[in-house]
Amino acid sequence: MPSIDLSSMKYGQELLKRGFATMQEGGVIMDVVDAEQAAVAEDAGAVAVMALERVPADIRSAGGVARMSHPNMIRGIIETTSIPVMAKARIGHEDEARVLQELGVDMIDESEVLTPADPFYHIHKKSFDVPFVCGCTNLGEAVRRIAEGAAMIRTKGEAGTGNVVSAVQHARIVASEIEHLQNDGDIEEIVDQIMTGFRRVNSASAMNLGNSKTPFGTHAEVRAEVRSVVGDVQSIGRLPVVTFSAGGISTPSDAALMMRQGMDGVFVGSGIFKSSDPARTAEAIVMATHSYDDPSVVAEASTMIGDAMPGLEIEGLPVRMDQRGW
Amino acid sequence: MPSIDLSSMKYGQELLKRGFATMQEGGVIMDVVDAEQAAVAEDAGAVAVMALERVPADIRSAGGVARMSHPNMIRGIIETTSIPVMAKARIGHEDEARVLQELGVDMIDESEVLTPADPFYHIHKKSFDVPFVCGCTNLGEAVRRIAEGAAMIRTKGEAGTGNVVSAVQHARIVASEIEHLQNDGDIEEIVDQIMTGFRRVNSASAMNLGNSKTPFGTHAEVRAEVRSVVGDVQSIGRLPVVTFSAGGISTPSDAALMMRQGMDGVFVGSGIFKSSDPARTAEAIVMATHSYDDPSVVAEASTMIGDAMPGLEIEGLPVRMDQRGW
Repeated sequence: MPSIDLSSMKYGQELLKRGFATMQEGGVIMDVVDAEQAAVAEDAGAVAVMALERVPADIRSAGGVARMSHPNMIRGIIETTSIPVMAKARIGHEDEARVLQELGVDMIDESEVLTPADPFYHIHKKSFDVPFVCGCTNLGEAVRRIAEGAAMIRTKGEAGTGNVVSAVQHARIVASEIEHLQNDGDIEEIVDQIMTGFRRVNSASAMNLGNSKTPFGTHAEVRAEVRSVVGDVQSIGRLPVVTFSAGGISTPSDAALMMRQGMDGVFVGSGIFKSSDPARTAEAIVMATHSYDDPSVVAEASTMIGDAMPGLEIEGLPVRMDQRGW
Repeated sequence: MPSIDLSSMKYGQELLKRGFATMQEGGVIMDVVDAEQAAVAEDAGAVAVMALERVPADIRSAGGVARMSHPNMIRGIIETTSIPVMAKARIGHEDEARVLQELGVDMIDESEVLTPADPFYHIHKKSFDVPFVCGCTNLGEAVRRIAEGAAMIRTKGEAGTGNVVSAVQHARIVASEIEHLQNDGDIEEIVDQIMTGFRRVNSASAMNLGNSKTPFGTHAEVRAEVRSVVGDVQSIGRLPVVTFSAGGISTPSDAALMMRQGMDGVFVGSGIFKSSDPARTAEAIVMATHSYDDPSVVAEASTMIGDAMPGLEIEGLPVRMDQRGW
């Protein structure tokens, strides 16, 4: 994917563009659970922090239902941090998102790392002032989220595993589908396929949503929006919003690998604060993300870290977070 | 497979040929985790060492995600060892490979012993100066890796088990497919079959990669390269690169068994440093590899060792490393 001026993007909101203004070759957004960790992230050069009670590896090992973090926890980080602060709402949980907007977070992540709250619809993101980031495993999912109002996309990996393979899989799928769209895709047919993603939810339930009005408008209104986003993707050859990679990135060379797939930056969750020396790891991953195309810098960054987080095989996991959402 | 002059091989790179110049009847490459083990390997007559943090048996019992070793560990071995030093990158992890090249390793093993990083593509090895070795379970996999730029092939065994059956299986499959190619194979049909290995990745995902450009070039460019490698195999009756056997070799007679299948040498991983007397075992395996066709020498070598490494049944293993890659 060719790099373009992020500030010129049609869909990204002003707040996002300002927040990422310092981002040069690529930004790193880090999961943090308290103000001390947020300070480590900021010192290391993170462009934003994601405030949450537990990093994905701990959410995974705790099991059960994962929800929006406690407001006091989020406020504590907002008050002590000068870079943008993001927080997670459950997929489709519009009221967690309204609470987060009220708390003053700079961006909401509608995240599959939390337990989904709506089996039919994602949040109607256009009805919010705060910008949203959403995950995707393919081009259709990305387009649906942008059509719903997402200002930023992160290709999904398998969060909390320290295993980068799922992040590579989804970045490659999005890139190859964009290539197909540009080279030999029938745009109206692709738009129709993407629309079935909104309808897919019907067959997964006992309910006939076939021709109902969605939270995002009538079928015709949603199709027009999707058609417009697909047209933009076709003309610029990449997603028309800031696009990060997330899930399983835990070493400097993992970050470089994702950046060389054409990403604008990376989210690092468990990879930093589950490593043996978080401050050094944070710094090393920022270094490798900025200078991803210079192997001598990535090698130096690889030397700086101690032990990377222990990881998990993806096959046989009891919960596949990357398969939540559609 | 007839033995040929390795230095005349079309695909092996100069560095590899020089590194293996001392190899007479067959070489042994040993896994080592520190400078002391590297010294033991060198004294025993290893042609190269593989620097890694844990031998495969320990990677297997640790579970989780196995990644490139720490640069300090690899540097420590490079600095104290005069024979070539190899190190492993994850399958498809081009940025680990770029770091290893930067560190100055003599050869990179794109290895299924580590957790794969890309579910679709192996590393584009032709874009590197350092030579690569890759594993294979059949002729198609070997040809794909050579077409991607591998300078050396090792038939895969089941690493870390001390169980030689999988190494024998894959060496026999490669040999029998080469025989078929020479005797009654339709070369264009075989090339088409080998090409489906590059496309196999499509069906593993929801994506249409059918006509995409691969990291190795267009479909037509890759097919021309594959056609050329298959032609070479047909004319010389063996793989056109140095071919070792790896995985599960743990006794002098295991090494002799693989050499008599036509191998140019063997990798011994856990077999040496998980045995009761590593220095003697290392020496005995080198002896048996050099004189594999003389049972009196193999008997003497078998007498030298103490207890071989404890081994594992392959059926029922939670992770089958030899089935990673394609």
